[in-house]
Amino acid sequence: MAYELYYWPGLQGRGEFVRLALEEAGADYVDVAREDGVGALMRAWDDAMIATPSFAPPFLRDRKRLIGQTANIVTYLGERHGLVPKAEAERLWAHQIQLTIADLVVEAHDVHHPLGGDLYYEDQKPEAKRRSQAFRQSRIPRFLGWFESILARNPKGNKHLVGARISTADLSLFQVVAGLRYAFPEAMARIEADHPLVVALHDRVAKRPRIAAYLASDRREAFNEDGIFRHYRELDG
Amino acid sequence: MAYELYYWPGLQGRGEFVRLALEEAGADYVDVAREDGVGALMRAWDDAMIATPSFAPPFLRDRKRLIGQTANIVTYLGERHGLVPKAEAERLWAHQIQLTIADLVVEAHDVHHPLGGDLYYEDQKPEAKRRSQAFRQSRIPRFLGWFESILARNPKGNKHLVGARISTADLSLFQVVAGLRYAFPEAMARIEADHPLVVALHDRVAKRPRIAAYLASDRREAFNEDGIFRHYRELDG
Repeated sequence: MAYELYYWPGLQGRGEFVRLALEEAGADYVDVAREDGVGALMRAWDDAMIATPSFAPPFLRDRKRLIGQTANIVTYLGERHGLVPKAEAERLWAHQIQLTIADLVVEAHDVHHPLGGDLYYEDQKPEAKRRSQAFRQSRIPRFLGWFESILARNPKGNKHLVGARISTADLSLFQVVAGLRYAFPEAMARIEADHPLVVALHDRVAKRPRIAAYLASDRREAFNEDGIFRHYRELDG
Repeated sequence: MAYELYYWPGLQGRGEFVRLALEEAGADYVDVAREDGVGALMRAWDDAMIATPSFAPPFLRDRKRLIGQTANIVTYLGERHGLVPKAEAERLWAHQIQLTIADLVVEAHDVHHPLGGDLYYEDQKPEAKRRSQAFRQSRIPRFLGWFESILARNPKGNKHLVGARISTADLSLFQVVAGLRYAFPEAMARIEADHPLVVALHDRVAKRPRIAAYLASDRREAFNEDGIFRHYRELDG
């Protein structure tokens, strides 16, 4: 039975981390709100009969099971499709990386919404500009530096974040690099050379047959200013 | 061999979620930076020989294993000490709740640091005031409403977030309620009555023998303005 992914249509957002795992797994899935509209998402989200309702999308239905929180979903899929290591130490490490990527995603979002999600970007532009400066100058280098360092330290080689094989952490780091490049092209152009292992990992993931096919398909929504990674000229530099 | 918890001394912060799990488990642990100073934390954090360095504290050493990310640590401890359900569906649900609590913690922090952690609160007071309004009026009710609703829907009874027994999710929700009461006493006084199951859970956790003993001990740091939940009069109301 196909997985059902519930996420906002029209943007990549957090759902994209789940989609990349589903695509690399070659799993059969329905992107519910894209196919049946946002009403179908809202009905599943608001269903008072569900004992485990999610605080927010994305959530995933696997037969009778409903699973929320991006890192939780991605790890669940990874365990079922050979995209998370089986050994406990490596599994914990992969999840730790996934959660650190989730932290980065919150910060990338808060660059354009420092005063909160209830206001439009247009209502918090000066604050966004101040926050973007710290994000570009301090936080992006700190996060990318950490990824570079854990790639360099991986005892199984610097081609993967965890062990000697592709994992959901690699897929998610690909998405982070792609997103940062979209949102902050100038800032990224300046610092990418300092993070060669991260860039090489991004490039290798993009060339994996199933990921390349996905990126070329119309299932891959383009980055836009409804998502996490938004390009506003005034926030780059 | 005792667990070693590495976290900033002098504040509860994210380390407190780990401490509550350790205390309820009756586990033997060393709170390294409190006992040996922040230098001991920095040395373990910066150690270039570690293949799995954490992006940020807290992290936990269990013999040769080093585990980072609060939700990851708490779930790890929960699995070892009977504070996370064994059945996969309930284990996933408990972790999903834990990750939603982590989201709330980021937002509670960003109330006083909307422009980022590189600036002092004193350098972003007007922005903090704007963000606190949205947090109090929209986000706290939304989060507490979600906790109330999942308690009400728990098929095993409304005394626990997951299943019929105490779990790390309950311990963490206790900490959230205590923190919100400290930081936003006026706002919380207004809305607590709408969330009786959440308040009752907080009170039951506080009375558990090991937790009560911990809270009365000098191991429990008081809430203060270095932590996640900070009381600034101008941000409450």
